[in-house]
Amino acid sequence: MMDLWFSEYHSEHVRFSMRIKEQLQSFQSPYQQIDVLDTYEFGRVLTLDGVVMLTQKDEFIYHEMMTHVPMAIQPTIQNVLVIGAGDGGTASRLCKYKTITNIDIVEIDEAVVNTCHLFFPEIANSFNDPRVHVMFEDGLKYVRTKENIYDLIIVDSTDPFGPGEGLFTKEFYGNCFNALRENGILVNQMESPYYKDDADAMKRAFSRIKSRFPIAYAYQAHIPTYPSGHWMFGYAAKTKQPLCDVSAWNTLDIKTKYYTTQLHAGCFALPAYVNAMLEEAQ
Amino acid sequence: MMDLWFSEYHSEHVRFSMRIKEQLQSFQSPYQQIDVLDTYEFGRVLTLDGVVMLTQKDEFIYHEMMTHVPMAIQPTIQNVLVIGAGDGGTASRLCKYKTITNIDIVEIDEAVVNTCHLFFPEIANSFNDPRVHVMFEDGLKYVRTKENIYDLIIVDSTDPFGPGEGLFTKEFYGNCFNALRENGILVNQMESPYYKDDADAMKRAFSRIKSRFPIAYAYQAHIPTYPSGHWMFGYAAKTKQPLCDVSAWNTLDIKTKYYTTQLHAGCFALPAYVNAMLEEAQ
Repeated sequence: MMDLWFSEYHSEHVRFSMRIKEQLQSFQSPYQQIDVLDTYEFGRVLTLDGVVMLTQKDEFIYHEMMTHVPMAIQPTIQNVLVIGAGDGGTASRLCKYKTITNIDIVEIDEAVVNTCHLFFPEIANSFNDPRVHVMFEDGLKYVRTKENIYDLIIVDSTDPFGPGEGLFTKEFYGNCFNALRENGILVNQMESPYYKDDADAMKRAFSRIKSRFPIAYAYQAHIPTYPSGHWMFGYAAKTKQPLCDVSAWNTLDIKTKYYTTQLHAGCFALPAYVNAMLEEAQ
Repeated sequence: MMDLWFSEYHSEHVRFSMRIKEQLQSFQSPYQQIDVLDTYEFGRVLTLDGVVMLTQKDEFIYHEMMTHVPMAIQPTIQNVLVIGAGDGGTASRLCKYKTITNIDIVEIDEAVVNTCHLFFPEIANSFNDPRVHVMFEDGLKYVRTKENIYDLIIVDSTDPFGPGEGLFTKEFYGNCFNALRENGILVNQMESPYYKDDADAMKRAFSRIKSRFPIAYAYQAHIPTYPSGHWMFGYAAKTKQPLCDVSAWNTLDIKTKYYTTQLHAGCFALPAYVNAMLEEAQ
Protein backbone atom coordinates (compact mmCIF):
# COMPACT_ATOMS: atom_id res chain seq x y z
CA MET A 1 0.00 0.00 0.00
CA MET A 2 1.15 3.52 -0.80
CA ASP A 3 1.88 5.30 2.50
CA LEU A 4 1.22 8.91 1.49
CA TRP A 5 0.98 11.73 4.04
CA PHE A 6 0.25 15.44 3.91
CA SER A 7 1.72 17.57 6.70
CA GLU A 8 1.02 21.12 7.77
CA TYR A 9 3.29 22.95 10.19
CA HIS A 10 1.08 24.39 12.93
CA SER A 11 4.13 26.14 14.30
CA GLU A 12 7.81 25.89 13.44
CA HIS A 13 8.03 22.91 15.78
CA VAL A 14 4.63 21.25 15.43
CA ARG A 15 3.31 19.25 12.52
CA PHE A 16 -0.17 17.89 11.84
CA SER A 17 -0.32 15.06 9.30
CA MET A 18 -3.08 13.18 7.57
CA ARG A 19 -2.87 9.98 5.57
CA ILE A 20 -3.81 10.49 1.93
CA LYS A 21 -5.68 8.18 -0.42
CA GLU A 22 -4.98 10.33 -3.42
CA GLN A 23 -3.98 13.84 -4.45
CA LEU A 24 -6.96 14.77 -6.60
CA GLN A 25 -5.78 18.13 -7.86
CA SER A 26 -2.69 20.32 -7.59
CA PHE A 27 -1.98 23.53 -9.46
CA GLN A 28 -0.81 27.09 -9.10
CA SER A 29 -3.45 29.79 -9.69
CA PRO A 30 -2.40 33.41 -10.24
CA TYR A 31 -2.78 33.86 -6.45
CA GLN A 32 -1.84 30.64 -4.69
CA GLN A 33 -1.12 26.94 -4.78
CA ILE A 34 -4.41 24.97 -4.76
CA ASP A 35 -4.59 21.30 -3.79
CA VAL A 36 -7.41 18.86 -3.19
CA LEU A 37 -6.55 15.73 -1.21
CA ASP A 38 -8.65 12.66 -0.59
CA THR A 39 -7.93 11.59 3.00
CA TYR A 40 -8.95 8.59 5.10
CA GLU A 41 -9.95 10.54 8.20
CA PHE A 42 -11.34 13.81 6.90
CA GLY A 43 -12.76 13.01 3.48
CA ARG A 44 -11.75 15.54 0.85
CA VAL A 45 -9.52 18.38 1.98
CA LEU A 46 -8.86 21.72 0.29
CA THR A 47 -5.49 23.34 0.93
CA LEU A 48 -4.29 26.77 -0.23
CA ASP A 49 -0.51 27.28 -0.21
CA GLY A 50 -0.27 24.04 1.77
CA VAL A 51 -2.60 25.22 4.55
CA VAL A 52 -5.86 23.35 5.29
CA MET A 53 -8.86 25.51 4.40
CA LEU A 54 -11.62 22.98 4.80
CA THR A 55 -12.24 19.29 5.22
CA GLN A 56 -15.46 17.44 4.55
CA LYS A 57 -15.40 16.08 8.09
CA ASP A 58 -15.37 19.35 9.97
CA GLU A 59 -16.13 22.28 7.64
CA PHE A 60 -19.55 22.44 9.30
CA ILE A 61 -18.01 23.77 12.52
CA TYR A 62 -16.29 26.75 10.94
CA HIS A 63 -19.13 27.63 8.58
CA GLU A 64 -21.93 27.26 11.11
CA MET A 65 -20.11 29.44 13.60
CA MET A 66 -19.41 32.17 10.99
CA THR A 67 -23.06 32.44 9.99
CA HIS A 68 -25.53 31.29 12.65
CA VAL A 69 -23.99 33.41 15.42
CA PRO A 70 -24.68 36.76 13.70
CA MET A 71 -27.99 35.55 12.20
CA ALA A 72 -29.28 34.53 15.64
CA ILE A 73 -28.27 37.91 17.07
CA GLN A 74 -29.84 39.97 14.27
CA PRO A 75 -32.66 38.08 12.50
CA THR A 76 -33.52 41.13 10.37
CA ILE A 77 -30.36 40.75 8.26
CA GLN A 78 -31.21 40.88 4.55
CA ASN A 79 -28.18 42.03 2.57
CA VAL A 80 -24.94 40.12 3.20
CA LEU A 81 -21.39 40.54 1.92
CA VAL A 82 -18.99 37.63 2.21
CA ILE A 83 -15.32 38.20 1.48
CA GLY A 84 -13.26 35.16 0.56
CA ALA A 85 -15.32 32.01 0.95
CA GLY A 86 -14.73 30.74 -2.57
CA ASP A 87 -15.68 27.26 -1.36
CA GLY A 88 -19.35 28.09 -0.86
CA GLY A 89 -19.54 26.79 2.71
CA THR A 90 -20.50 30.14 4.20
CA ALA A 91 -23.07 30.83 1.47
CA SER A 92 -24.59 27.37 1.90
CA ARG A 93 -25.48 28.20 5.52
CA LEU A 94 -26.70 31.73 4.72
CA CYS A 95 -29.01 30.31 2.05
CA LYS A 96 -30.96 28.51 4.79
CA TYR A 97 -32.40 31.88 5.89
CA LYS A 98 -35.50 32.82 3.90
CA THR A 99 -35.19 36.38 5.21
CA ILE A 100 -31.85 36.95 3.46
CA THR A 101 -32.51 38.58 0.09
CA ASN A 102 -28.99 39.05 -1.28
CA ILE A 103 -25.56 37.46 -0.75
CA ASP A 104 -22.58 39.09 -2.47
CA ILE A 105 -19.45 36.99 -2.46
CA VAL A 106 -16.16 38.66 -3.28
CA GLU A 107 -13.45 36.09 -3.89
CA ILE A 108 -10.12 37.11 -5.33
CA ASP A 109 -9.35 33.75 -6.92
CA GLU A 110 -11.77 32.27 -9.49
CA ALA A 111 -9.79 29.02 -9.45
CA VAL A 112 -10.93 28.33 -5.87
CA VAL A 113 -14.58 28.49 -6.91
CA ASN A 114 -14.01 26.26 -9.92
CA THR A 115 -12.11 23.73 -7.83
CA CYS A 116 -14.85 23.60 -5.22
CA HIS A 117 -17.56 23.17 -7.85
CA LEU A 118 -15.70 20.05 -8.96
CA PHE A 119 -14.68 18.54 -5.65
CA PHE A 120 -17.03 19.97 -2.98
CA PRO A 121 -20.38 20.18 -4.79
CA GLU A 122 -22.31 19.69 -1.52
CA ILE A 123 -21.27 23.18 -0.40
CA ALA A 124 -20.41 24.84 -3.74
CA ASN A 125 -23.99 24.17 -4.87
CA SER A 126 -24.95 27.23 -2.88
CA PHE A 127 -23.49 29.35 -5.71
CA ASN A 128 -26.52 28.30 -7.77
CA ASP A 129 -28.95 30.01 -5.38
CA PRO A 130 -30.39 33.04 -7.24
CA ARG A 131 -29.65 35.27 -4.22
CA VAL A 132 -25.90 34.55 -4.46
CA HIS A 133 -23.70 36.80 -6.63
CA VAL A 134 -20.05 35.92 -6.95
CA MET A 135 -17.53 38.59 -7.96
CA PHE A 136 -13.89 37.86 -8.61
CA GLU A 137 -12.23 40.86 -7.05
CA ASP A 138 -9.92 41.94 -4.29
CA GLY A 139 -12.12 42.27 -1.19
CA LEU A 140 -10.05 45.17 0.11
CA LYS A 141 -10.71 47.21 -3.04
CA TYR A 142 -14.34 46.12 -3.27
CA VAL A 143 -15.41 47.48 0.12
CA ARG A 144 -13.62 50.80 -0.41
CA THR A 145 -16.42 52.11 -2.59
CA LYS A 146 -19.40 50.73 -0.63
CA GLU A 147 -21.39 52.81 1.81
CA ASN A 148 -24.27 51.97 4.11
CA ILE A 149 -25.60 48.98 2.16
CA TYR A 150 -24.86 45.71 4.00
CA ASP A 151 -26.46 44.34 7.17
CA LEU A 152 -23.73 41.77 7.67
CA ILE A 153 -20.17 41.38 6.40
CA ILE A 154 -18.44 38.04 6.89
CA VAL A 155 -14.69 37.96 6.37
CA ASP A 156 -13.97 34.35 5.54
CA SER A 157 -10.34 34.93 4.70
CA THR A 158 -7.16 32.90 4.55
CA ASP A 159 -4.43 33.66 7.09
CA PRO A 160 -2.93 37.16 7.18
CA PHE A 161 0.03 36.11 5.06
CA GLY A 162 -0.20 36.05 1.25
CA PRO A 163 -3.44 36.96 -0.58
CA GLY A 164 -5.42 37.40 2.66
CA GLU A 165 -3.11 40.02 4.16
CA GLY A 166 -5.11 43.11 3.16
CA LEU A 167 -8.17 41.70 4.94
CA PHE A 168 -6.49 42.18 8.31
CA THR A 169 -5.68 45.91 7.99
CA LYS A 170 -7.12 48.93 9.78
CA GLU A 171 -8.13 50.42 6.44
CA PHE A 172 -10.13 47.33 5.57
CA TYR A 173 -12.01 47.24 8.88
CA GLY A 174 -12.75 50.97 8.54
CA ASN A 175 -14.15 50.40 5.05
CA CYS A 176 -16.28 47.54 6.37
CA PHE A 177 -17.67 49.90 9.00
CA ASN A 178 -18.68 52.34 6.26
CA ALA A 179 -20.15 49.62 4.05
CA LEU A 180 -22.41 48.48 6.90
CA ARG A 181 -25.85 49.88 7.62
CA GLU A 182 -26.77 51.47 10.94
CA ASN A 183 -27.25 48.15 12.77
CA GLY A 184 -24.58 46.31 10.79
CA ILE A 185 -22.43 43.42 12.02
CA LEU A 186 -18.94 42.30 11.02
CA VAL A 187 -17.81 38.73 11.64
CA ASN A 188 -14.28 37.62 10.79
CA GLN A 189 -12.18 34.51 11.17
CA MET A 190 -9.54 35.57 13.69
CA GLU A 191 -6.89 32.85 13.97
CA SER A 192 -6.03 31.05 17.20
CA PRO A 193 -4.76 32.07 20.66
CA TYR A 194 -2.41 29.11 21.12
CA TYR A 195 0.65 29.19 18.88
CA LYS A 196 2.54 32.48 19.00
CA ASP A 197 2.27 33.61 15.37
CA ASP A 198 -1.47 32.90 15.28
CA ALA A 199 -1.97 34.58 18.64
CA ASP A 200 -0.11 37.67 17.47
CA ALA A 201 -2.31 37.82 14.34
CA MET A 202 -5.41 37.46 16.52
CA LYS A 203 -4.33 40.26 18.83
CA ARG A 204 -3.48 42.58 15.93
CA ALA A 205 -6.80 41.93 14.17
CA PHE A 206 -8.82 42.41 17.35
CA SER A 207 -7.04 45.63 18.23
CA ARG A 208 -7.68 47.06 14.76
CA ILE A 209 -11.36 46.07 14.75
CA LYS A 210 -11.76 47.52 18.24
CA SER A 211 -10.36 50.85 16.99
CA ARG A 212 -13.10 51.03 14.32
CA PHE A 213 -16.19 49.52 15.97
CA PRO A 214 -17.87 50.55 19.23
CA ILE A 215 -18.78 46.91 19.99
CA ALA A 216 -16.10 44.22 19.58
CA TYR A 217 -16.01 40.70 21.00
CA ALA A 218 -14.33 37.40 20.21
CA TYR A 219 -15.86 33.95 20.23
CA GLN A 220 -14.43 30.46 19.84
CA ALA A 221 -15.03 27.01 18.42
CA HIS A 222 -13.38 23.60 18.43
CA ILE A 223 -12.05 23.05 14.89
CA PRO A 224 -9.72 20.04 15.03
CA THR A 225 -8.08 20.53 11.62
CA TYR A 226 -7.02 24.13 12.27
CA PRO A 227 -3.84 24.84 14.27
CA SER A 228 -4.36 23.90 17.95
CA GLY A 229 -8.04 23.14 17.29
CA HIS A 230 -8.93 26.30 19.21
CA TRP A 231 -10.22 28.77 16.68
CA MET A 232 -11.39 32.35 17.16
CA PHE A 233 -13.90 34.57 15.43
CA GLY A 234 -14.35 38.30 15.77
CA TYR A 235 -17.78 39.87 16.29
CA ALA A 236 -18.05 43.63 15.78
CA ALA A 237 -21.15 45.78 15.54
CA LYS A 238 -22.34 49.35 15.37
CA THR A 239 -25.19 48.92 17.86
CA LYS A 240 -25.97 45.26 18.55
CA GLN A 241 -24.58 43.41 21.58
CA PRO A 242 -23.93 39.70 20.89
CA LEU A 243 -25.13 38.33 24.23
CA CYS A 244 -28.81 38.95 23.73
CA ASP A 245 -31.82 36.64 23.78
CA VAL A 246 -31.35 34.44 20.70
CA SER A 247 -34.04 31.86 21.50
CA ALA A 248 -36.21 32.95 18.55
CA TRP A 249 -33.58 31.39 16.26
CA ASN A 250 -34.94 27.96 17.27
CA THR A 251 -38.30 28.71 15.64
CA LEU A 252 -36.52 28.86 12.25
CA ASP A 253 -35.93 25.12 12.53
CA ILE A 254 -32.52 25.25 10.85
CA LYS A 255 -30.68 21.96 11.21
CA THR A 256 -27.14 22.29 12.59
CA LYS A 257 -24.42 19.95 13.79
CA TYR A 258 -22.45 22.45 15.88
CA TYR A 259 -24.35 25.66 16.64
CA THR A 260 -27.07 25.72 19.28
CA THR A 261 -28.57 28.69 21.08
CA GLN A 262 -27.22 27.27 24.37
CA LEU A 263 -23.76 27.22 22.85
CA HIS A 264 -24.25 30.82 21.66
CA ALA A 265 -23.52 32.38 25.04
CA GLY A 266 -20.95 29.69 25.80
CA CYS A 267 -18.80 30.44 22.77
CA PHE A 268 -18.26 34.02 23.99
CA ALA A 269 -17.02 32.78 27.40
CA LEU A 270 -13.28 32.61 26.75
CA PRO A 271 -10.45 31.10 28.79
CA ALA A 272 -8.72 33.52 31.15
CA TYR A 273 -5.51 33.55 29.12
CA VAL A 274 -7.42 34.48 25.94
CA ASN A 275 -9.26 37.28 27.74
CA ALA A 276 -5.89 38.57 28.93
CA MET A 277 -4.51 38.55 25.36
CA LEU A 278 -7.51 40.44 24.03
CA GLU A 279 -7.39 43.03 26.80
CA GLU A 280 -3.70 43.52 26.14
CA ALA A 281 -4.55 44.09 22.47
CA GLN A 282 -6.73 47.10 23.22
CA MET B 1 21.24 20.26 13.84
CA MET B 2 19.59 17.06 14.97
CA ASP B 3 16.07 16.96 13.50
CA LEU B 4 14.31 14.81 16.09
CA TRP B 5 10.51 14.40 16.17
CA PHE B 6 8.04 12.63 18.41
CA SER B 7 4.73 11.60 16.81
CA GLU B 8 1.48 10.42 18.33
CA TYR B 9 -1.25 8.85 16.21
CA HIS B 10 -4.49 10.69 17.01
CA SER B 11 -6.30 8.20 14.84
CA GLU B 12 -5.05 5.49 12.51
CA HIS B 13 -4.74 8.14 9.81
CA VAL B 14 -3.78 11.27 11.73
CA ARG B 15 -0.46 12.07 13.34
CA PHE B 16 0.54 14.92 15.64
CA SER B 17 4.27 15.60 15.84
CA MET B 18 6.48 17.81 17.93
CA ARG B 19 10.11 18.70 17.44
CA ILE B 20 12.31 17.43 20.25
CA LYS B 21 15.35 19.02 21.83
CA GLU B 22 16.19 15.93 23.82
CA GLN B 23 14.71 12.73 25.17
CA LEU B 24 15.28 13.24 28.89
CA GLN B 25 14.10 9.87 30.15
CA SER B 26 12.80 6.62 28.72
CA PHE B 27 12.08 3.42 30.57
CA GLN B 28 9.58 0.66 31.10
CA SER B 29 7.87 0.58 34.51
CA PRO B 30 5.95 -2.54 35.61
CA TYR B 31 2.85 -0.90 34.10
CA GLN B 32 3.84 1.17 31.10
CA GLN B 33 6.49 2.86 29.00
CA ILE B 34 7.39 6.26 30.53
CA ASP B 35 9.13 8.99 28.54
CA VAL B 36 10.00 12.60 29.22
CA LEU B 37 10.78 14.76 26.19
CA ASP B 38 12.12 18.28 26.05
CA THR B 39 10.31 20.01 23.17
CA TYR B 40 10.68 23.39 21.49
CA GLU B 41 6.97 24.27 21.48
CA PHE B 42 5.55 22.69 24.61
CA GLY B 43 8.43 22.61 27.09
CA ARG B 44 8.78 19.27 28.83
CA VAL B 45 6.30 16.58 27.85
CA LEU B 46 5.37 13.39 29.72
CA THR B 47 4.21 10.45 27.62
CA LEU B 48 2.90 7.09 28.85
CA ASP B 49 2.99 4.26 26.31
CA GLY B 50 3.75 6.90 23.67
CA VAL B 51 0.65 8.99 24.43
CA VAL B 52 0.98 12.60 25.61
CA MET B 53 -0.18 12.94 29.22
CA LEU B 54 0.89 16.48 29.92
CA THR B 55 3.01 19.28 28.55
CA GLN B 56 4.36 22.26 30.45
CA LYS B 57 2.69 24.58 27.94
CA ASP B 58 -0.90 23.44 28.37
CA GLU B 59 -1.25 21.18 31.43
CA PHE B 60 -2.98 24.12 33.12
CA ILE B 61 -6.04 23.70 30.91
CA TYR B 62 -6.68 20.07 31.80
CA HIS B 63 -5.88 20.42 35.49
CA GLU B 64 -7.83 23.64 36.05
CA MET B 65 -10.90 22.20 34.37
CA MET B 66 -10.75 18.97 36.40
CA THR B 67 -10.61 20.82 39.72
CA HIS B 68 -12.09 24.33 39.65
CA VAL B 69 -15.35 23.25 37.98
CA PRO B 70 -16.42 20.95 40.85
CA MET B 71 -14.91 23.23 43.53
CA ALA B 72 -16.90 26.22 42.23
CA ILE B 73 -20.09 24.15 42.23
CA GLN B 74 -19.60 22.76 45.75
CA PRO B 75 -17.38 25.00 47.89
CA THR B 76 -17.99 22.82 50.98
CA ILE B 77 -15.81 19.99 49.61
CA GLN B 78 -13.28 18.86 52.23
CA ASN B 79 -12.24 15.27 51.55
CA VAL B 80 -11.05 14.50 48.02
CA LEU B 81 -9.96 11.31 46.29
CA VAL B 82 -7.94 11.56 43.09
CA ILE B 83 -7.35 8.44 41.04
CA GLY B 84 -4.39 8.46 38.68
CA ALA B 85 -2.80 11.90 38.61
CA GLY B 86 0.70 10.72 39.45
CA ASP B 87 2.04 13.95 37.98
CA GLY B 88 0.67 16.15 40.76
CA GLY B 89 -1.10 18.63 38.48
CA THR B 90 -4.54 17.93 39.87
CA ALA B 91 -3.31 18.03 43.47
CA SER B 92 -1.48 21.30 42.83
CA ARG B 93 -4.81 23.00 41.97
CA LEU B 94 -6.72 21.36 44.81
CA CYS B 95 -4.09 22.58 47.29
CA LYS B 96 -5.12 26.16 46.49
CA TYR B 97 -8.35 25.61 48.46
CA LYS B 98 -7.90 26.25 52.18
CA THR B 99 -11.22 24.51 52.81
CA ILE B 100 -9.93 21.16 51.54
CA THR B 101 -8.65 19.14 54.49
CA ASN B 102 -7.51 15.89 52.85
CA ILE B 103 -6.44 14.79 49.38
CA ASP B 104 -5.93 11.05 48.81
CA ILE B 105 -4.15 10.20 45.58
CA VAL B 106 -4.28 6.63 44.34
CA GLU B 107 -1.78 6.09 41.54
CA ILE B 108 -1.02 2.60 40.30
CA ASP B 109 2.50 3.39 39.11
CA GLU B 110 5.07 4.77 41.56
CA ALA B 111 7.46 5.38 38.67
CA VAL B 112 5.17 8.15 37.33
CA VAL B 113 5.38 10.05 40.62
CA ASN B 114 9.16 9.66 40.80
CA THR B 115 9.56 10.81 37.21
CA CYS B 116 7.41 13.88 37.79
CA HIS B 117 9.30 14.81 40.95
CA LEU B 118 12.43 14.92 38.82
CA PHE B 119 11.14 16.60 35.67
CA PHE B 120 7.96 18.50 36.61
CA PRO B 121 8.73 19.82 40.11
CA GLU B 122 6.43 22.85 39.59
CA ILE B 123 3.39 20.56 39.77
CA ALA B 124 4.83 17.52 41.62
CA ASN B 125 5.68 19.84 44.54
CA SER B 126 2.06 19.52 45.55
CA PHE B 127 2.88 16.05 46.87
CA ASN B 128 4.73 17.80 49.71
CA ASP B 129 1.55 19.47 50.98
CA PRO B 130 0.70 17.81 54.34
CA ARG B 131 -2.92 17.30 53.21
CA VAL B 132 -1.81 15.11 50.27
CA HIS B 133 -1.47 11.35 50.77
CA VAL B 134 -0.21 9.27 47.89
CA MET B 135 -0.98 5.55 47.74
CA PHE B 136 0.42 3.24 45.11
CA GLU B 137 -2.53 1.02 44.41
CA ASP B 138 -5.01 0.06 41.74
CA GLY B 139 -7.76 2.69 41.89
CA LEU B 140 -10.41 0.13 40.95
CA LYS B 141 -9.54 -2.03 43.98
CA TYR B 142 -9.08 0.98 46.28
CA VAL B 143 -12.60 2.38 45.88
CA ARG B 144 -14.23 -1.05 46.30
CA THR B 145 -13.85 -0.91 50.07
CA LYS B 146 -14.70 2.77 50.62
CA GLU B 147 -18.12 3.94 51.70
CA ASN B 148 -19.59 7.39 52.25
CA ILE B 149 -16.31 9.21 52.92
CA TYR B 150 -15.37 11.47 50.00
CA ASP B 151 -16.96 14.76 48.91
CA LEU B 152 -15.27 14.68 45.52
CA ILE B 153 -13.66 11.96 43.41
CA ILE B 154 -11.56 13.01 40.42
CA VAL B 155 -10.70 10.31 37.91
CA ASP B 156 -7.57 11.62 36.23
CA SER B 157 -6.92 8.45 34.29
CA THR B 158 -5.06 7.45 31.15
CA ASP B 159 -7.09 6.29 28.15
CA PRO B 160 -9.34 3.23 28.56
CA PHE B 161 -6.75 0.94 27.01
CA GLY B 162 -3.95 -0.55 29.15
CA PRO B 163 -3.60 0.28 32.88
CA GLY B 164 -6.50 2.78 32.80
CA GLU B 165 -9.08 0.32 31.50
CA GLY B 166 -10.67 -0.61 34.85
CA LEU B 167 -11.38 3.06 35.54
CA PHE B 168 -13.98 3.13 32.76
CA THR B 169 -16.14 0.24 33.98
CA LYS B 170 -19.65 0.18 35.42
CA GLU B 171 -18.33 -1.50 38.54
CA PHE B 172 -15.85 1.32 39.11
CA TYR B 173 -18.46 4.07 38.72
CA GLY B 174 -20.79 2.19 41.07
CA ASN B 175 -18.02 1.95 43.66
CA CYS B 176 -17.32 5.67 43.27
CA PHE B 177 -20.99 6.34 43.97
CA ASN B 178 -20.75 4.34 47.20
CA ALA B 179 -17.47 5.99 48.22
CA LEU B 180 -19.06 9.45 47.90
CA ARG B 181 -20.94 11.24 50.64
CA GLU B 182 -24.54 12.37 50.31
CA ASN B 183 -23.70 15.48 48.21
CA GLY B 184 -20.72 13.92 46.50
CA ILE B 185 -19.41 14.73 43.02
CA LEU B 186 -17.51 12.61 40.50
CA VAL B 187 -15.42 14.26 37.79
CA ASN B 188 -13.65 12.17 35.17
CA GLN B 189 -11.56 12.78 32.08
CA MET B 190 -13.82 11.48 29.30
CA GLU B 191 -11.88 11.44 26.01
CA SER B 192 -12.94 13.37 22.89
CA PRO B 193 -15.98 13.41 20.61
CA TYR B 194 -14.07 13.81 17.37
CA TYR B 195 -12.11 10.71 16.33
CA LYS B 196 -14.18 7.54 16.32
CA ASP B 197 -12.30 5.45 18.93
CA ASP B 198 -12.22 8.35 21.39
CA ALA B 199 -15.87 9.16 20.73
CA ASP B 200 -16.87 5.55 21.35
CA ALA B 201 -14.95 5.58 24.63
CA MET B 202 -16.67 8.84 25.61
CA LYS B 203 -20.12 7.43 24.85
CA ARG B 204 -19.45 4.21 26.77
CA ALA B 205 -18.12 6.07 29.81
CA PHE B 206 -21.01 8.52 29.84
CA SER B 207 -23.60 5.81 29.49
CA ARG B 208 -22.11 3.85 32.41
CA ILE B 209 -21.88 6.91 34.67
CA LYS B 210 -25.44 7.85 33.78
CA SER B 211 -26.59 4.37 34.85
CA ARG B 212 -25.09 4.94 38.33
CA PHE B 213 -25.66 8.64 39.07
CA PRO B 214 -28.93 10.59 39.05
CA ILE B 215 -27.15 13.70 37.71
CA ALA B 216 -24.73 13.32 34.79
CA TYR B 217 -23.38 15.98 32.44
CA ALA B 218 -20.39 16.47 30.19
CA TYR B 219 -18.25 19.58 29.77
CA GLN B 220 -15.46 20.51 27.41
CA ALA B 221 -12.17 22.36 27.07
CA HIS B 222 -9.69 23.29 24.35
CA ILE B 223 -6.57 21.17 25.00
CA PRO B 224 -4.37 21.46 21.90
CA THR B 225 -2.01 18.56 22.70
CA TYR B 226 -4.80 15.98 23.17
CA PRO B 227 -6.34 14.32 20.09
CA SER B 228 -8.48 16.84 18.16
CA GLY B 229 -7.92 19.49 20.84
CA HIS B 230 -11.56 19.02 21.88
CA TRP B 231 -11.50 17.30 25.25
CA MET B 232 -14.41 16.19 27.41
CA PHE B 233 -14.94 15.78 31.13
CA GLY B 234 -17.74 14.00 32.91
CA TYR B 235 -19.59 15.60 35.82
CA ALA B 236 -21.78 13.33 37.93
CA ALA B 237 -23.41 14.02 41.28
CA LYS B 238 -25.83 12.61 43.80
CA THR B 239 -27.71 15.87 44.39
CA LYS B 240 -25.84 18.87 43.00
CA GLN B 241 -26.64 20.38 39.58
CA PRO B 242 -23.58 21.86 37.84
CA LEU B 243 -25.23 24.95 36.39
CA CYS B 244 -25.72 26.84 39.61
CA ASP B 245 -24.54 30.25 40.76
CA VAL B 246 -20.77 29.89 41.06
CA SER B 247 -19.94 33.58 41.47
CA ALA B 248 -18.78 33.10 45.09
CA TRP B 249 -15.75 31.27 43.67
CA ASN B 250 -14.35 34.66 42.64
CA THR B 251 -14.05 35.75 46.27
CA LEU B 252 -11.47 32.98 46.81
CA ASP B 253 -9.07 34.95 44.60
CA ILE B 254 -7.54 31.84 43.03
CA LYS B 255 -5.37 32.73 40.06
CA THR B 256 -6.19 30.74 36.90
CA LYS B 257 -5.15 30.84 33.26
CA TYR B 258 -8.13 28.94 31.81
CA TYR B 259 -11.07 28.63 34.22
CA THR B 260 -13.36 31.59 34.85
CA THR B 261 -16.87 31.63 36.31
CA GLN B 262 -18.14 33.01 32.98
CA LEU B 263 -16.59 30.05 31.21
CA HIS B 264 -18.19 27.71 33.78
CA ALA B 265 -21.63 27.77 32.17
CA GLY B 266 -20.08 27.99 28.70
CA CYS B 267 -18.11 24.77 29.05
CA PHE B 268 -21.34 22.81 29.59
CA ALA B 269 -22.85 24.20 26.36
CA LEU B 270 -21.81 21.51 23.89
CA PRO B 271 -21.96 21.38 20.10
CA ALA B 272 -25.11 19.82 18.66
CA TYR B 273 -23.26 16.75 17.39
CA VAL B 274 -21.79 16.09 20.85
CA ASN B 275 -25.20 16.45 22.49
CA ALA B 276 -26.53 13.94 19.97
CA MET B 277 -23.76 11.45 20.81
CA LEU B 278 -24.41 11.76 24.54
CA GLU B 279 -28.16 11.34 24.14
CA GLU B 280 -27.57 8.29 21.98
CA ALA B 281 -25.37 6.91 24.77
CA GLN B 282 -28.20 6.90 27.30
